Amino acid sequence: MAGSRNMNLACPIPKSDYETVLMAHGGGGKMTQQLIERMFLPVLGNEWLEQGHDGARIPQISGELAMTTDSFVVDPIFFPGGNIGELAVNGTINDLICCGAEPLYISLALILEEGFLLDDLWKIVRSIDNAARKAGVKVITGDTKVVERGKGDKIYINTSGIGKVLPGMSISPENCQPGDVVIINGSIGDHGIAIMSERAGISYESPIQSDTASLSRMMLDVFHHHSNLHVLRDPTRGGVASALNEICQASGMDIRLYEDQLEVTESVRGACELMGFDPLYVANEGKILVILPENLAGQVLDIMRSHETGRLSRVIGHVTGEHRGLLHMETTIGSTRIIDMISGEQLPRIC
Amino acid sequence: MAGSRNMNLACPIPKSDYETVLMAHGGGGKMTQQLIERMFLPVLGNEWLEQGHDGARIPQISGELAMTTDSFVVDPIFFPGGNIGELAVNGTINDLICCGAEPLYISLALILEEGFLLDDLWKIVRSIDNAARKAGVKVITGDTKVVERGKGDKIYINTSGIGKVLPGMSISPENCQPGDVVIINGSIGDHGIAIMSERAGISYESPIQSDTASLSRMMLDVFHHHSNLHVLRDPTRGGVASALNEICQASGMDIRLYEDQLEVTESVRGACELMGFDPLYVANEGKILVILPENLAGQVLDIMRSHETGRLSRVIGHVTGEHRGLLHMETTIGSTRIIDMISGEQLPRIC
Repeated sequence: MAGSRNMNLACPIPKSDYETVLMAHGGGGKMTQQLIERMFLPVLGNEWLEQGHDGARIPQISGELAMTTDSFVVDPIFFPGGNIGELAVNGTINDLICCGAEPLYISLALILEEGFLLDDLWKIVRSIDNAARKAGVKVITGDTKVVERGKGDKIYINTSGIGKVLPGMSISPENCQPGDVVIINGSIGDHGIAIMSERAGISYESPIQSDTASLSRMMLDVFHHHSNLHVLRDPTRGGVASALNEICQASGMDIRLYEDQLEVTESVRGACELMGFDPLYVANEGKILVILPENLAGQVLDIMRSHETGRLSRVIGHVTGEHRGLLHMETTIGSTRIIDMISGEQLPRIC
Repeated sequence: MAGSRNMNLACPIPKSDYETVLMAHGGGGKMTQQLIERMFLPVLGNEWLEQGHDGARIPQISGELAMTTDSFVVDPIFFPGGNIGELAVNGTINDLICCGAEPLYISLALILEEGFLLDDLWKIVRSIDNAARKAGVKVITGDTKVVERGKGDKIYINTSGIGKVLPGMSISPENCQPGDVVIINGSIGDHGIAIMSERAGISYESPIQSDTASLSRMMLDVFHHHSNLHVLRDPTRGGVASALNEICQASGMDIRLYEDQLEVTESVRGACELMGFDPLYVANEGKILVILPENLAGQVLDIMRSHETGRLSRVIGHVTGEHRGLLHMETTIGSTRIIDMISGEQLPRIC
């Protein structure tokens, strides 16, 4: 019964034992075992994790593989629309998707700060499980370390992932062709602004929610119908501007964005003005940039829009015939401006 | 020319630019790119890493796979005999070996503290490269995050790894059979005591060095000759006592150690007495416990001893006919005592 393991919402370690993470939870002894047996296995357990080895053995995967890794240090760890746990799972799944791969297995490594609330850890572990199951991936191996107070910040999570590259998929920035169009599956800037607003203590009439989501089901649906996609990239840290700039640099091609096609919600637009951010540089955690031949765009958009995560998919730009490696934008008032890569630190610890 | 990329010892980022890690190095923009292009790629670069994607595509691997993950938070990051970089590479390689797998690919995720010296980062990156090349594994994908001063401790490293399980290998604690012998490849407690001495500011006439080492070449040599090994385990956090206790618990079998066969160097023995540690519970980072049928022990010992990392390999115990899941030790004075799992925190942040 999917979901049933999550129904017990109370932390399984009684407060009379201990309420927070202790240094001994990272010692590799009885206390580490307790954390694994009482918190991790009951929720995340599967045939691999339950082997209790230092690593997991998994069946042969036919074809090419994709591997990815990401550490998550987002602050705060709970934010409107999600928490660090699902963010870590979705982020690694989306990186595998951007390799043209079907996400299959992930590892989970936690760095806990002494004194971190076990209740919060429990919420995060449950949310990791939910995110993994939604996307059909298994958490097959893990690690827990504990650092002293003031040497961490509640919890840092690393997820690494393995996927199976789908036959015929060859995704690379070098594939950009003049005339290719750039699709994105919705509004931009939501995740970054949700985090920054929470951090700044700003509240809005309609709260800005992170867009954290797995793109797996939507994109696997696309992959099964169309393998001739050229580039896939999730515009996380650095936002759409940085992701597209990297593609321009790697391919040597120019990309032209249409400002009037970029969807920015009213609240994100307002928050950006208030805090002095440009939504083009703000992180997204449930968005994907798809660059593909124009003649496929209609069919791919139809598939993407049939999924909740792709309901607002649209063409936002195209690859031009120029070879300068520049990203530029046609503004709503008809002028053109160069969109450079971000140089400093706009939004620290956004993911 | 192997090794040539390491000959330039100076940090490639001039001190006139910046000497330490800045928050912007984790922003996903130009500064992150600089770190990748000037420090990581010149040393670690290979066909996968140079693709510059969020993930790496790797060729098909025939047969079962093994996957493992470990975060390293060791304090201090430089210690006699090694540093956190090679420790992170060797640790993940050794976990793959303990799955009966040939280590192939690893990922590298760094959590850097703002203000961490770039010179130190550079030393660590070079040492990661050395360790990976010695063991014949490739660093194929990575991630860099930066946290504010006081939210980390210089550098935390996660390495995850993929290996190919060798045909016929079936390694599991449940494989223990009465009469099996327990081999270890040398003295115990060196890594943990090297760290604790450094941390306590204790110096010895002959400094105690960490045993950090990759077990890959030695054990692959064993694997190619003998697939009928029953259990493999690297006695890291919690030491030999915790590793063997876990095996006893998982298999339900008893294991008997012979105290007079356990090699503890004079300096480690002295330091343990001074600091109040039992070497049986102290972490090792270049040791492996091999449990196998007695009739293979001689041949396997010969192979192990032919490698530098296995020069002092010996039988230290055996699986008895009792089924209580207990680890016990025959002491040098002829008595027997139960060796329990460690319950508290003996040695925080040892790896």
